[in-house]
Amino acid sequence: MENDILIHNGILLTMEDGLPVIENGFVHIKQGKIADCGPALPEQIRTLAQNPARQIDACGGIIMPGLVNGHTHTPMSMFRGLADDLPLDLWLNGHIFPAEARDVNPESVAQWTAHSCREMLAGGITTCCDGYFLESHAAKAMADSGIRAVAGQGVIDFPAPGVPDPVKNIDHAKDFIEKTSTLSPRITPSLFCHSPYTCSKQTLVAGKNLAREKGVLFQIHAAETRAEPGMIKENRGLSVIAYLDSLAILDPDTLLIHCVWLDENDIGIIAKRGCGVIHCPESNMKLASGVAPVPDMVAAGLTVGLGTDGCASNNDQDMFSEMDTAAKLHKVVRLDPCVMDARTCLKMATIDGAKALGLGDITGSIHPGKAADIIVVDTTGLHMTPMHDPYSGLVYAARASDVSWVMVEGKIRLKKNPPLHPLGTDRPAGSYRPSTR
Amino acid sequence: MENDILIHNGILLTMEDGLPVIENGFVHIKQGKIADCGPALPEQIRTLAQNPARQIDACGGIIMPGLVNGHTHTPMSMFRGLADDLPLDLWLNGHIFPAEARDVNPESVAQWTAHSCREMLAGGITTCCDGYFLESHAAKAMADSGIRAVAGQGVIDFPAPGVPDPVKNIDHAKDFIEKTSTLSPRITPSLFCHSPYTCSKQTLVAGKNLAREKGVLFQIHAAETRAEPGMIKENRGLSVIAYLDSLAILDPDTLLIHCVWLDENDIGIIAKRGCGVIHCPESNMKLASGVAPVPDMVAAGLTVGLGTDGCASNNDQDMFSEMDTAAKLHKVVRLDPCVMDARTCLKMATIDGAKALGLGDITGSIHPGKAADIIVVDTTGLHMTPMHDPYSGLVYAARASDVSWVMVEGKIRLKKNPPLHPLGTDRPAGSYRPSTR
Ligand SMILES: [Zn+2]
Ligand SMILES: [Zn+2]
Repeated sequence: MENDILIHNGILLTMEDGLPVIENGFVHIKQGKIADCGPALPEQIRTLAQNPARQIDACGGIIMPGLVNGHTHTPMSMFRGLADDLPLDLWLNGHIFPAEARDVNPESVAQWTAHSCREMLAGGITTCCDGYFLESHAAKAMADSGIRAVAGQGVIDFPAPGVPDPVKNIDHAKDFIEKTSTLSPRITPSLFCHSPYTCSKQTLVAGKNLAREKGVLFQIHAAETRAEPGMIKENRGLSVIAYLDSLAILDPDTLLIHCVWLDENDIGIIAKRGCGVIHCPESNMKLASGVAPVPDMVAAGLTVGLGTDGCASNNDQDMFSEMDTAAKLHKVVRLDPCVMDARTCLKMATIDGAKALGLGDITGSIHPGKAADIIVVDTTGLHMTPMHDPYSGLVYAARASDVSWVMVEGKIRLKKNPPLHPLGTDRPAGSYRPSTR
Repeated sequence: MENDILIHNGILLTMEDGLPVIENGFVHIKQGKIADCGPALPEQIRTLAQNPARQIDACGGIIMPGLVNGHTHTPMSMFRGLADDLPLDLWLNGHIFPAEARDVNPESVAQWTAHSCREMLAGGITTCCDGYFLESHAAKAMADSGIRAVAGQGVIDFPAPGVPDPVKNIDHAKDFIEKTSTLSPRITPSLFCHSPYTCSKQTLVAGKNLAREKGVLFQIHAAETRAEPGMIKENRGLSVIAYLDSLAILDPDTLLIHCVWLDENDIGIIAKRGCGVIHCPESNMKLASGVAPVPDMVAAGLTVGLGTDGCASNNDQDMFSEMDTAAKLHKVVRLDPCVMDARTCLKMATIDGAKALGLGDITGSIHPGKAADIIVVDTTGLHMTPMHDPYSGLVYAARASDVSWVMVEGKIRLKKNPPLHPLGTDRPAGSYRPSTR
């Protein structure tokens, strides 16, 4: 039992089917994988609970799978707050593109990806899906940080950092995928075509063919801005989704990011093809892109994850805030307080996000055989007390700063001292009061 | 200089006209009031900077006025997360009203108000505007907590905690106002009529007359739910705002809370009468009430503050999250990324909120003669780095947990040790990098 770790003395949310609440649960970790979990600590591992070096005491907090950030551009933390509250054109052409031309290089990509990974890990994100240029430097930084990641090399039909000649964008991506496949078992290479309007038909098809040949995830921003459907309609005679479908790009290994401007027919196509979708409510709000029809997607059975998007458009990588916003935004837009309940949002931020990225067998829930990607959330904060329901507490009240332990593949990546509440709390740790509803 | 305190070595945002950014500012506090502030530490108080007991080192963080929570029901933290994601009727009649009948008493009001005040102070809120029943117990708890508050005794034409016979609701409020006026210089009594549909015409008029006679703020939930305008139209033949105006209730000492369902004419009436408005975006979203036309109100010159509403409908009292949500919600609803910029939202959460509550001469900005209601926000967090613009950093990235010092009327109410960032940061404290835009 030398490498075993026991997490115990907390409310266990496995995020497995039925979304059980195990009021005093444990997780037993062996060699970075989940060996066992449940309500009653088995006799043969009780000694672990006495061994300070082999046990994590959740102190009555919530033990749950690490969060899955389904979409980000990790190096863009360098542009956090650089230019806000501006029209899209001025923001992109006047600020972001010039800043990228000036500041993006292998060193800055490595530095700010490392920064983003620390930000994400500190906030309970154990898996992220990234897409940017010079992605080999991002992938290396992600591998070093301890996070689990899908690393997508950007493909665009313009000169880009690391790919000055766009004619070589697919070759460059091929090279990246081949080199990155052996980087780390935690890092999965991928190809990230920027969008249907910045990549030609040929580029999209060649990109998807390469992704298919290599067996990797094909990521694309799709139907994000209000202008996009009209543009594609005019040039291709089809909706964005129908256009991508006409190129045979849509399948379960394609990840559609944003999907704001969809109609019923588009949702039907995505459902039929089995693509994953990533919803980025805060980015869509801040950039005034629009409100994605997420409740309809969920009703149609789509696999929808949540993402923060990059720091130029959010401006943080905080999945607690993203869950809260997702839950509230659709309620007010639909004038229906029942849509996007806390459980749905927490699924999106964990298991459904993992499934959308093709990592559903590896992470996103607590189940024997899966990687030990686990966090503990402190529930003693004043803003978390009382906690009648842990799902509601996590979505509507918890903050990224409440995360007290973070583990990726069994390795501890964050450990906080017992939290200080200088002004006192009313509720002793662990006194979770289940709702009677 | 025995009672003097110096806050220095931080980015000073006074929230005074022009919204200056003073890159290395100071605030000098004497007898609980702001004596002086600015960029250059005057010769005669330099010795304070050497005296550990008399100086607060902001360590490069942001020095700013404490936040003003323009609307809450402090005792309702006892119902945090009790019942979420439900239809309004079932939520109110099936859960909140029965829970109030069961659990609300003088002791629980005192206990959970104290809890809410600690939650708010820890998150940088130095002033709140409260409205509930058994408000004398809430007022006492607020006074003891150290927060500044407007305490509004609830008035409703139904039996309520502490007022079993609604015929006596105005007398009860009168009694409360008289007793509370001498409680503490930080506590201002007020009268809180629940809404135009739960208070009769007679109650509303009598309530406003009492408030006028006593010179206190008259608070009312107005035009919150989608059903309300139709109800008032049918019974009174007027819009909600026109109805209140017809009763001569609208003046600068009336605070209109929510104001979701307004038309242009209503906004014109409010502008003419000079009422303050409190916008509660997270409550409006979670309860699916609707989206208030806040950009139009601001354009019409209304004084609009921000509020969290009570914990049954948010579920926390976090003004950082409220600012972030306010900034993003209106952008996406208007499909315009320029509305509700960071500066506007920060004004709402400070000086404009103070003005709406009638406390604009006392708190809400840093100005000589005003009360020393001041907070320091740590900017070294990973999620706050880099910080190209402090307003943007506060609205789009800061969390309530970043507040490191809280002072109300010169008394320190929160003091954190220098924050621990277990995984390291890239940016040393104070290396604020101003944007070139
Ligand atoms: Zn993106
Ligand atoms: Zn309210």
